[in-house]
Order: sequence, then structure tokens, then C-alpha cells
Amino acid sequence: MEESRIVEGRNAVLEAFRSGKTVDKLFVLDGCKDGPVQTILREAKKSKDTVLSFVKKERLDQLSETGKHQGVLAYVASYDYVEIDDIMAAAAAKGQDPFVIFLDDIEDPHNLGAIIRTANQAGAHGVVIPKHRAVGLTATVAKASAGAINYTPVAKVTNISKTMEELKAKGMWFVCADMGGTEMYKLNLTGPIGLVIGNEGHGVSQLVKKNCDMIASIPMFGDIDSLNASVACGVLAYEVVRQRLNNQ
Amino acid sequence: MEESRIVEGRNAVLEAFRSGKTVDKLFVLDGCKDGPVQTILREAKKSKDTVLSFVKKERLDQLSETGKHQGVLAYVASYDYVEIDDIMAAAAAKGQDPFVIFLDDIEDPHNLGAIIRTANQAGAHGVVIPKHRAVGLTATVAKASAGAINYTPVAKVTNISKTMEELKAKGMWFVCADMGGTEMYKLNLTGPIGLVIGNEGHGVSQLVKKNCDMIASIPMFGDIDSLNASVACGVLAYEVVRQRLNNQ
Repeated sequence: MEESRIVEGRNAVLEAFRSGKTVDKLFVLDGCKDGPVQTILREAKKSKDTVLSFVKKERLDQLSETGKHQGVLAYVASYDYVEIDDIMAAAAAKGQDPFVIFLDDIEDPHNLGAIIRTANQAGAHGVVIPKHRAVGLTATVAKASAGAINYTPVAKVTNISKTMEELKAKGMWFVCADMGGTEMYKLNLTGPIGLVIGNEGHGVSQLVKKNCDMIASIPMFGDIDSLNASVACGVLAYEVVRQRLNNQ
Repeated sequence: MEESRIVEGRNAVLEAFRSGKTVDKLFVLDGCKDGPVQTILREAKKSKDTVLSFVKKERLDQLSETGKHQGVLAYVASYDYVEIDDIMAAAAAKGQDPFVIFLDDIEDPHNLGAIIRTANQAGAHGVVIPKHRAVGLTATVAKASAGAINYTPVAKVTNISKTMEELKAKGMWFVCADMGGTEMYKLNLTGPIGLVIGNEGHGVSQLVKKNCDMIASIPMFGDIDSLNASVACGVLAYEVVRQRLNNQ
């Protein structure tokens, strides 16, 4: 989180909102209710991307880079998010079945960057991340993506499960990576597909898993629990690629 | 090499105990009593070698090399490198064709760790790294390997090309990952195989490439140059797995 751009002070934060930047997180001094702060809070409420927290002075001082936060501090994304509809439109424009990678709470910026890079190379039309908790598009993510962040669109949604339901109604199929599923080679991964990758520690959440049509397992012959999340994503994304190529 | 090394994070410390490594010292955050920590404490009590200390966060932060100790940090006897013959013997003992991953100068410890993890899960018998320049088995590598470093042997050789020549004389085939080769699905990757992954920046060196029997290319549909090295290794290693499973 410390790598994303920090904007501090009332004017600077208000400008970030008004210029249409994506403000991922907004921290406001608890109890601070004067006019300029109210204006910032109104902007924050208009934005579907912003997670608002009221915090104590000690916390703001700790987050602050300049020591001059004036009770307001924000994390601003260096990259813009798209809407999920933009991703679907990109697939349609190419005359391809949508292939979208859903990340159920990836926390490590190196993993997120590597996954955006993989999405780009595997021909996926976009990446979807959740609004809360998970890492956003920070400078570290951009670097780890090796520039793919400039080409592969990323959408941020409030509720991954709800977005999945909406897309299922439009004909998308969802497959998540988890143990105890069907060996990935035995699944049909062609057609309009959403590939869901879970959190590094605890995998795919129960609610998201329940919304998946298929559970794909990567064959594992080892002594440990799992693969690195971005490696698992690469292996599964390329199984989708293999099946799509065979299917042509 | 130092006499002991620092292992950090819950999974990595637990794996060190479970794989039978000698844990000389264990530091646990004072007051930390959740499930994973209790499991580690039980393992520590079983070990006659481990000196246990409960310490404050400041002390853990001070001891930590990665900054990500998750409240648990241990001093473990250093990792031992094996000889290449040990890796070949491990394959023979399992009655399997050798499957070895050769790293031609991987520099990033996260990549090396993720690759050792992948090698473990894909059923490779070992990993070979060059003695010079490349990253060795550091604490960051151990953590990124999620404990796989305790199971999958790593050999360090003076000259990757020379080792490849010796193994080719014994019947091994070598395939390296590079652009402009044959699409990986069209190659025969069964039999005794060495999979060569190049450096993050400049790929496989000319001399090593000349020694390879095959050049495998991962299909790329993107706007950038390549995949992350550990993701590319995962995708290719699982193409070997797929072909071996089909071949049974």
C-alpha cells in the first residue's frame, strides 16, 4: 500500500476527486467536520471506488509522508479502472468469447502485477478485482506487470459474487481454482469464461466458490499445499488457451 | 555460508519443523495465541533442539530480514545443496524419468522461491542453479517457496552448459523456453527432460540455448514481450505434466 500515490491536505485531496482520479482510500480525522472536509466527504460518497475510514490523529501522522495532512489523506491510483462492461465490449469488438480473470482478494502486489501480465499474454480481455481489502493498481503492481497494465483493462467491483451472477445471466461460465475439484484437463474451458483465482493464504471464498460452475484442480505431486497464486493463474489461463487453440 | 538462517512467517516456520529441519531458536510474538501459532508451538515442544522465546513486536521487527514475520521467526540450520547425481538418483528411486528444472541465472528471490514451489508440485526431481551471479537459497527464497525448499533438492553447479552436456551423454533431453521456438504443445516433452528457464531480463544465454535439443514457445497474444519467469516456468512445467499424464 505504501507504494501507491499518497495525496495529503484538503486542497490536494479535493483536486484528486474533482480531476476524476480514482481515489482508492480516503482517511479523515475522526470528528473533523468543517466545511472543506464536508465537501471532500460529499465527493467521496459520489465515488464508487473510494473506501472511507475515520481515523485518529496518530494514524494519520503515521501514514503521512509530509507531516502536513490537515486531517485528510488519500491513496490515489496511478492507473484508471474500467467498468466490467468495457471488458465485455473489448471481447465483442474482437469477435471473441469473453475470457476474464477474477481475483478474489489477491494481496501481494507482485502477484497482481504478474497476473495482469499473464492476462495480457494469454489473450484475456481483462482482470476484475474487489474494491475492499485487496491490493489496487500501485506502482509496484505496474512494475511487476512489465507494462501490461497499460494494455489489459482492470475493473474494480464492490462485490465479486454479485458481478459473477450478473455475468452468468449473460452467458458467462465461471471456473475457480481449488483443490478437490476436477482435474483441469478434463473440464471444458472453451466458450465465454471467467477464471477465478483466490487469495494467497485462504484461497477462494465460500460464497464465490458457490457461484462457480466448475472447480478446476491443477494436478499436484508435491509435499506442500499449493502453487504461488500467480503461477496457478498462469497454469490455468494457459489451459484455457490450449483448449481454445484446439477448438479453432 | 552462515551457520543458521532465518525463516519467517507461519507457513515457512511450520514447514521447517514438519520437514525435520533443525530449528535452533524460535521467536514468537508475545500474546499471539491463534491456531497456526499454537500448531507451531506444539511442533516446537516436540523438538529437543528448539529454544523458545516470546518477544515483543519491536524485537521481531529487528530480527526480521523480510519485514513479513507474521509474529513468528526461527533460526534454522542452513539449507544444504545437493549434487546433481542426488537429483538423478531421486528420480531413479521413484522409477521415474528424470524431470529437472535448470535456471540459467534467475536473479529475483521471489521467482526462485516460486519456481522451487512449482518444481515440487509438478513432480520435478530437483532444481539446478548456477554457482555465480544468480540468487541462492536465502530467507526470502525459502519464504517464497512456501516450504518447498525443504523437499525439493537444489543443486548448484559451476557451469550450467557443462552439466547439461554431461547429462545429455546420459540420455537427458533439454528444452528451453524462448520466443521463436516451436509451440510447446507440438513438442514431445515426455522422457528424461531438463527444462531450462532463462534470466528475467535477457532470457536464456546463447551457449545454453545452443546446448538445448528443443526450443519451446508459449503462445503469446499480448502487447508486451514475455511472461514473468516463474509463471513461464509454471506454464511449461505443467505442459510436461500434461504430456506425462497423457502418456501413462
